[in-house]
Amino acid sequence: MAALVIGICGGTGAGKTTLARRIVAALAEESAVLVAQDHYYKDLAHLAPEQRAGHNFDHPESVDIPLIIEHLRLLRSGRAIDRPTYDFARHLRENRTVRLQPGPVVIVEGTLLLENRELCELFDLKIFLDTDADVRFIRRLRRDLRERGRTIESVIEQYLASVYPMHKQFIEPSKARADVIIGSDGETEVENLIQKIRASLSITAGTSARPQLGTRAHDSNNGSGMNIDAKEKIETR
Amino acid sequence: MAALVIGICGGTGAGKTTLARRIVAALAEESAVLVAQDHYYKDLAHLAPEQRAGHNFDHPESVDIPLIIEHLRLLRSGRAIDRPTYDFARHLRENRTVRLQPGPVVIVEGTLLLENRELCELFDLKIFLDTDADVRFIRRLRRDLRERGRTIESVIEQYLASVYPMHKQFIEPSKARADVIIGSDGETEVENLIQKIRASLSITAGTSARPQLGTRAHDSNNGSGMNIDAKEKIETR
Repeated sequence: MAALVIGICGGTGAGKTTLARRIVAALAEESAVLVAQDHYYKDLAHLAPEQRAGHNFDHPESVDIPLIIEHLRLLRSGRAIDRPTYDFARHLRENRTVRLQPGPVVIVEGTLLLENRELCELFDLKIFLDTDADVRFIRRLRRDLRERGRTIESVIEQYLASVYPMHKQFIEPSKARADVIIGSDGETEVENLIQKIRASLSITAGTSARPQLGTRAHDSNNGSGMNIDAKEKIETR
Repeated sequence: MAALVIGICGGTGAGKTTLARRIVAALAEESAVLVAQDHYYKDLAHLAPEQRAGHNFDHPESVDIPLIIEHLRLLRSGRAIDRPTYDFARHLRENRTVRLQPGPVVIVEGTLLLENRELCELFDLKIFLDTDADVRFIRRLRRDLRERGRTIESVIEQYLASVYPMHKQFIEPSKARADVIIGSDGETEVENLIQKIRASLSITAGTSARPQLGTRAHDSNNGSGMNIDAKEKIETR
């Protein structure tokens, strides 16, 4: 049976990594493989270093979506991938890769996952973290100051010049494709979601059937969340 | 004829003062009087200095709403007021007051104006600036760092402990009472609004009639913005 593929989307600072890790921690050891969009930035070796720094890293074109799609298809069908690694300081894809083994659950997290229709079709469950924008900015500010040694003004300038308009243009509208939207006060929803994913997997163990958690983009049902879709029902017959 | 009273509401950093000043600048000299909620914080002389610093200044109870109501009633009926002044460093109302002369337009701006139903009834036009929360936080952060000499962490801590939850509880829901809601991209709407206010006043000059810009809270019409309400129509007969 194909692995369960869960996509976690939302703007910068929405809590995607935290949620991904919570789901991993809630599942049996080594049952989940975690894939982050951040590793899939396109290599900018063809640009001069000063051009790379001015590049718009929040635009969908900056991410190697075709490679993510290829890797998800491999993981989904039970094969390992060699995940790229990215050098954020020099804006280059490194030579080394990291081998990721497949598992019954594949969790993918990133800002632009739901923006791409073809990528969306690979997700069994599409989660959008709709965290308040002020809370998201504060998290990013703290992280950038702590981990990247930047100044407040440089963080604010980049945010207003690139992060904010790209969020409005690409991330916010992609929320409409989500199966589940979780707001800033969504702790109960997060708990429910994790329980459903756990339940879905325990039912799966030893059988070829699994209740569907979300709706694939190519299924023309109502798209309203945690329902069983036609495709999976056929598989269970 | 009673003065035209315009209430400008919205969260911290929403652009209330900027809009108020733009309206003032668009009107004939000395025709508008500007009242800011910030001057009406309650005096905390009864608290010890360390208690004052820990006070929740974002709760409606921290503002002397009855005094704002009294002052708006005076200005509205063409009488001057003695506006209080507030010492933000010591959290005390100062002894001195500032005399404000009445004018044909009274503009009031503050975060909690639409939260209070009785206050709402005094506004001929209720504007809510629904600026994105990340943009609002960034403006507040810059202002607090520049004007108040605070640290990033102290700004963030106060924001998350008090500004953010009070916004959710009191300011955000009060948006429902607005006649006009202006979003982050609302420049065109702002221009239209200013033109309408100007037009409303030029019609008024030398007559006792004025087209109604908004809807008073006690009028039970549909509340959908810039319509003429029954009360004003009776006055023009």
